[in-house]
Amino acid sequence: MKGPASLDRLIVELQKLPGVGRKTAERLAFHVLKGAPAEVKKLAQALVDVKEKVRLCSLCCSVTENDPCDICADTRRDRSLICVVEEPADVFAIERINEYKGVYHVLMGALSPLDGIGPEDLKLAELQRRVAAGGVREVIVATNPNVEGEATAMYVARVLADAGTLVTRIARGLPMGGDLEYADEVTLSRALDGRLKM
Amino acid sequence: MKGPASLDRLIVELQKLPGVGRKTAERLAFHVLKGAPAEVKKLAQALVDVKEKVRLCSLCCSVTENDPCDICADTRRDRSLICVVEEPADVFAIERINEYKGVYHVLMGALSPLDGIGPEDLKLAELQRRVAAGGVREVIVATNPNVEGEATAMYVARVLADAGTLVTRIARGLPMGGDLEYADEVTLSRALDGRLKM
Repeated sequence: MKGPASLDRLIVELQKLPGVGRKTAERLAFHVLKGAPAEVKKLAQALVDVKEKVRLCSLCCSVTENDPCDICADTRRDRSLICVVEEPADVFAIERINEYKGVYHVLMGALSPLDGIGPEDLKLAELQRRVAAGGVREVIVATNPNVEGEATAMYVARVLADAGTLVTRIARGLPMGGDLEYADEVTLSRALDGRLKM
Repeated sequence: MKGPASLDRLIVELQKLPGVGRKTAERLAFHVLKGAPAEVKKLAQALVDVKEKVRLCSLCCSVTENDPCDICADTRRDRSLICVVEEPADVFAIERINEYKGVYHVLMGALSPLDGIGPEDLKLAELQRRVAAGGVREVIVATNPNVEGEATAMYVARVLADAGTLVTRIARGLPMGGDLEYADEVTLSRALDGRLKM
């Protein structure tokens, strides 16, 4: 932008964030420039803190400051029920519905040969160990309903096939509030395949 | 989000940025969490640096690390021509067209009674002083073509009325590449009013 060097540097750094282009980076930078110094320090400190304090839970591989994480440490949670998700954000998404009482296992990604992500890059061995240790009644595979997530789900099912544990997959179908007329063919086909007795 | 405390804190801080809601803040926070620690430190440092190093130019009130700023200090710029803008970002926008050879004056806002921004909140006295000091041939008022910007432009013209300097306003009309059919009434009316001899 050829503004002050430190401003240009901030704009360059902000542009590295996902979904932030030049215009947005400039807008954010000028906002920071106008903001109170204390507020900016708080943001900078929060950025550094998160890298220093947050690590992976040794049980479920989700992000946490304490090990084991709050969910794994909670004795009221049903440890015989494991929900397998791709990312820590998915854990928080499911927690928000305030219904699920089991525990989680975060794979930290999905199988994606094109991106060079194979089984050894995911937390699959950790999942296998947890199930092999016994006491697990059901594993709910809640990876994303896209190509990578579906492939990962099938791989998880195969890996756990000999463990004698029930492996289930979350339902794929029409989203609530959606419109049958505008549903894509794959979703509609899934919705028919997955029909349940009323 | 009820995730790790430092992650929640980062999400709260990120949400204070303009145009960043909960979902975007979460996405950015998880990006930071996955990123290299060195990259995150660079961003945090850039945030702190910008507040510490950048200040206002004592001449044109734009943002700069050196006082006077590079533009005001540049002897090749025409100091008898002052372009008045609302924000430092506007200076960089005009600089990008690589045509303007005069200097700038940044008002640091626009008149907005509803937001409690009056003339004393803008860098108007500084502009008056610069013009009164003499040697200014023309003042181009390039505030935004909206209600606040137009009101500010009129105010600037009034303030400089007795200085004996030519005060001009940037043209308002149809944007290049635009379509007459889809232009709004106010723009079209302005375009007609501001017609020039061919």
